[in-house]
Amino acid sequence: MGKVKFNFSAGPAVLPEAVLKEAAQAVVDCGGTGLSILCMSHRGGTYEALHMEALANLRDLLRVPDDFAILLLQGGATQQFSQVAMNLAQGKPADYTLTGQWAEGAFKEAGKVAAVRVAADSRKVQPARVPLASEIKVGADAAYLHITTNETVDGIQWTSLPDSPVPLVADMSSDIMSRDIPWNRFSLVYAGAQKNLGPAGVTVVIVRKDVAEKAPSALPAMLRYQTHVEKDSLHNTPPCFSIYVLALVTRWVKAQGGVAVLEQRNRAKAAKLYAAIDGSGFYRGTADKAYRSIMNVTYRLPNEDLEKTFVKEAEAAGLSGLKGHRVVGGLRASIYNAMPESGVDALIQFMKDFQGRHS
Amino acid sequence: MGKVKFNFSAGPAVLPEAVLKEAAQAVVDCGGTGLSILCMSHRGGTYEALHMEALANLRDLLRVPDDFAILLLQGGATQQFSQVAMNLAQGKPADYTLTGQWAEGAFKEAGKVAAVRVAADSRKVQPARVPLASEIKVGADAAYLHITTNETVDGIQWTSLPDSPVPLVADMSSDIMSRDIPWNRFSLVYAGAQKNLGPAGVTVVIVRKDVAEKAPSALPAMLRYQTHVEKDSLHNTPPCFSIYVLALVTRWVKAQGGVAVLEQRNRAKAAKLYAAIDGSGFYRGTADKAYRSIMNVTYRLPNEDLEKTFVKEAEAAGLSGLKGHRVVGGLRASIYNAMPESGVDALIQFMKDFQGRHS
Repeated sequence: MGKVKFNFSAGPAVLPEAVLKEAAQAVVDCGGTGLSILCMSHRGGTYEALHMEALANLRDLLRVPDDFAILLLQGGATQQFSQVAMNLAQGKPADYTLTGQWAEGAFKEAGKVAAVRVAADSRKVQPARVPLASEIKVGADAAYLHITTNETVDGIQWTSLPDSPVPLVADMSSDIMSRDIPWNRFSLVYAGAQKNLGPAGVTVVIVRKDVAEKAPSALPAMLRYQTHVEKDSLHNTPPCFSIYVLALVTRWVKAQGGVAVLEQRNRAKAAKLYAAIDGSGFYRGTADKAYRSIMNVTYRLPNEDLEKTFVKEAEAAGLSGLKGHRVVGGLRASIYNAMPESGVDALIQFMKDFQGRHS
Repeated sequence: MGKVKFNFSAGPAVLPEAVLKEAAQAVVDCGGTGLSILCMSHRGGTYEALHMEALANLRDLLRVPDDFAILLLQGGATQQFSQVAMNLAQGKPADYTLTGQWAEGAFKEAGKVAAVRVAADSRKVQPARVPLASEIKVGADAAYLHITTNETVDGIQWTSLPDSPVPLVADMSSDIMSRDIPWNRFSLVYAGAQKNLGPAGVTVVIVRKDVAEKAPSALPAMLRYQTHVEKDSLHNTPPCFSIYVLALVTRWVKAQGGVAVLEQRNRAKAAKLYAAIDGSGFYRGTADKAYRSIMNVTYRLPNEDLEKTFVKEAEAAGLSGLKGHRVVGGLRASIYNAMPESGVDALIQFMKDFQGRHS
């Protein structure tokens, strides 16, 4: 394997180089204190300032209104699959759109703690897409409608939000911080950090305060959002290092000009890569063009042997993480916020060269 | 504040310098791959090897028998407080010994998901100690007897395990890896990593496989130990960096000669510090001498103003984290595995000088 030049991993994904350098320094000595960021009390001033900065920057960048709380939790989106329903179902059924592997996980886990219903199911549609408006049936009695805004496995994305008589709850693990969020449509948004926000180990939950407050008080403290709302996510020892790196990433996003700038860049990167695929007569995109993800570009080659060769040769050329998810096979280029345009250019050039050698 | 020379924080606590240096390097480039440890897929070979090494080293160092599974989870000991009861109560009552703040937390959270009983309560005894054998009443019908092997706030420790007709479950967050564990007495042991094992963000759970298997199958996947038993704690994206540093710490423990060597060192460090306190006629230990912790040494000065001055002057001298827990006040020196004897020597010297200046 060649030394990695560009990392297309679906997650834990590439982070900005400047963030990595600063984080490495802080592992030895955080801000000249003589203390590693790994070895300081979470009740001390140095850590607390970083923790509060992460929260404030998230609020600022994502334009989160005051009636929402931002929580920094553990367990990944997978723990949220059940925790959302424990807190938000509140005796009502909850409706789910099934768009792929991650939506399915959310639905299955919620079903263990609440009554769940299928509002739409587009999992078997080919080419892959999210449900059409006409296919979605949401009960007016539902506690919420759950969507997975971006499905990393199939490379599809909700390009606009579904109509719904009830508030939305969304797993935004793989596209948070890539576009503006219309908060008036949501009760709750959650995201594992390891794509656009930071390293694995911290999960961001943004929840409407009045909804969190009404969750059953009998829930274990760690599973009840309200515990963390009241303690600024310092109820117990938080995953300090992951939150610290998240703070650095939010600083980086600010320095780039914010979410709108990143969205524009991401659309340009994705458009370029999809155009290279569509124009090749060799590579074939797997998702319905109207619902293509700007984060995870999934595509195929004429046969699986060629796909294996592609992944191997790409690795050797320093382009890593291009193998598709094991469930669907094929190729996948994850081009999250921290993937520079030069990485996409290098991939496109490699794809052209590969086509020349193998078509 | 002076630059920190020795860090007596109760947690997240000091880690070996060599571990910090290697971890810092891996944040930029892990093992010459060109990939940061923060940015690599948890399904890739490099991470998986480190993950499996952490598990294997824990098994080796703690002499964990084959009929126990080792899990690397998230949420800290605080999440285990309820998760233990969800999985292990299995329709029976669970008995708890109340020895201080952490035992109380475990009892309270377990009570939200299972029937719990007080087997003994030594919380108000002064000087602080764990319950005497004669004070402990465990029901033969109990699912388990819960103990908190070391209470960081009060500086007390179970110096020997209580007799019990049922298996023990123990929160060992603050003394795991400091002494041998007689596994035949236990169903489960859990520990947040941030004292003796690594940074915050990963929680080690070691559970008897037959017990984990019998947990209710209706539990959400993330909360059911069996999910993680079956997947080697790779059911979803794990807290990769915290686990990586845990792997480095286990390598370090091995290089030191293992748990027995560390135990000997810890006993020597604690004996030295307690002797300095007892012989001073100025400092006063707060715990019953028979149950003093070898991890957290708690003591007082003649008055609170002096204690404040002590903490301030110690910080200025590069000795950080000596303030007692906010609930009890006073002073606390946490001298976990990674605190070198020279750190304890420096503290003792500072204490002598301080006494000279202020008595």
